Amino acid sequence: MKYCCDCGAPVELGIPAGDDRERYLCPACGSIHYQNPKLVVGCLAEFNDQILLCRRAIEPRLGLWTVPAGFMENGETVEEAALRETAEEANARVEMLPLFSVVSLPHISQVYMLFRGRLLDQDFSAGHETLEVSLFREPDIPWEELAFPTIAYTLERYFEDRGRGVFDLHSATIRRPAHRRS
Amino acid sequence: MKYCCDCGAPVELGIPAGDDRERYLCPACGSIHYQNPKLVVGCLAEFNDQILLCRRAIEPRLGLWTVPAGFMENGETVEEAALRETAEEANARVEMLPLFSVVSLPHISQVYMLFRGRLLDQDFSAGHETLEVSLFREPDIPWEELAFPTIAYTLERYFEDRGRGVFDLHSATIRRPAHRRS
Repeated sequence: MKYCCDCGAPVELGIPAGDDRERYLCPACGSIHYQNPKLVVGCLAEFNDQILLCRRAIEPRLGLWTVPAGFMENGETVEEAALRETAEEANARVEMLPLFSVVSLPHISQVYMLFRGRLLDQDFSAGHETLEVSLFREPDIPWEELAFPTIAYTLERYFEDRGRGVFDLHSATIRRPAHRRS
Repeated sequence: MKYCCDCGAPVELGIPAGDDRERYLCPACGSIHYQNPKLVVGCLAEFNDQILLCRRAIEPRLGLWTVPAGFMENGETVEEAALRETAEEANARVEMLPLFSVVSLPHISQVYMLFRGRLLDQDFSAGHETLEVSLFREPDIPWEELAFPTIAYTLERYFEDRGRGVFDLHSATIRRPAHRRS
């Protein structure tokens, strides 16, 4: 941020009265511009013993696999965001199931919220931001070609939970920029 | 938003190529300015059979009761945000327990995430944004003087779950601006 979005004057970094951290301040109109983490919401779509993955057609991580997920939009609920991303990226429809993972990524100020969902049919296809959509059984998951560490973390917990027959909510923090499966 | 925060030129509303909703666009530098929901994170701090509530010293809802909660900051995790808000608003320390409620408020583009927490001692006091901090047993909760419908929803679920001895994760959407306890 270089300019005040309220009045157009150049902003400065400073700590507002009563605050304890730097914000972008406008010396012309007095506005304080707060910046906050973004929510990335998506869906682990199940079909029998398979999970739906999308191969990304856009950067970052073009060509790698992920679950349908993206930035939550103003005016929607977290469940609506998960349904929308699943429709946009995979042209797929799901019945929403409970929230499965919450992952904080403080180094990039993002929080992922991934829900389980039951895919309603096999009538899916690649959306504009997707090269390919496919269902994977556990042994076929492309672990070395997953786009994001949040997705690897969530899929690992998913198959563990499925193995023991109970799905919990999983919370984690991923601070490192890259992920290698242990 | 009236001016581009990258270059200071006046912005316009328009739908970017490949997008499906209006964004603030800068005709001068080409920037697209996305706006996304904010996360409000907080803590239901338990002490034996009591819950810690704070009476707000600031607007909105000055004088009404809430749990320690506030906007998540860049660079922190959701758990760190809950601990920080509990320290700032009630000068209290908690051991974090699992996420308890996720509430979407699409009309104001907020998502609340409230964790349970175990208050470590009774050495708490009002922070700068708080008039008064107190522990409440269930019969003494000031239901008619709660600041926000998310707090009423979460406390209702909390006491129900405590009554049956199992704490679940509760998800909800609250679309109405005001709340009357049923």
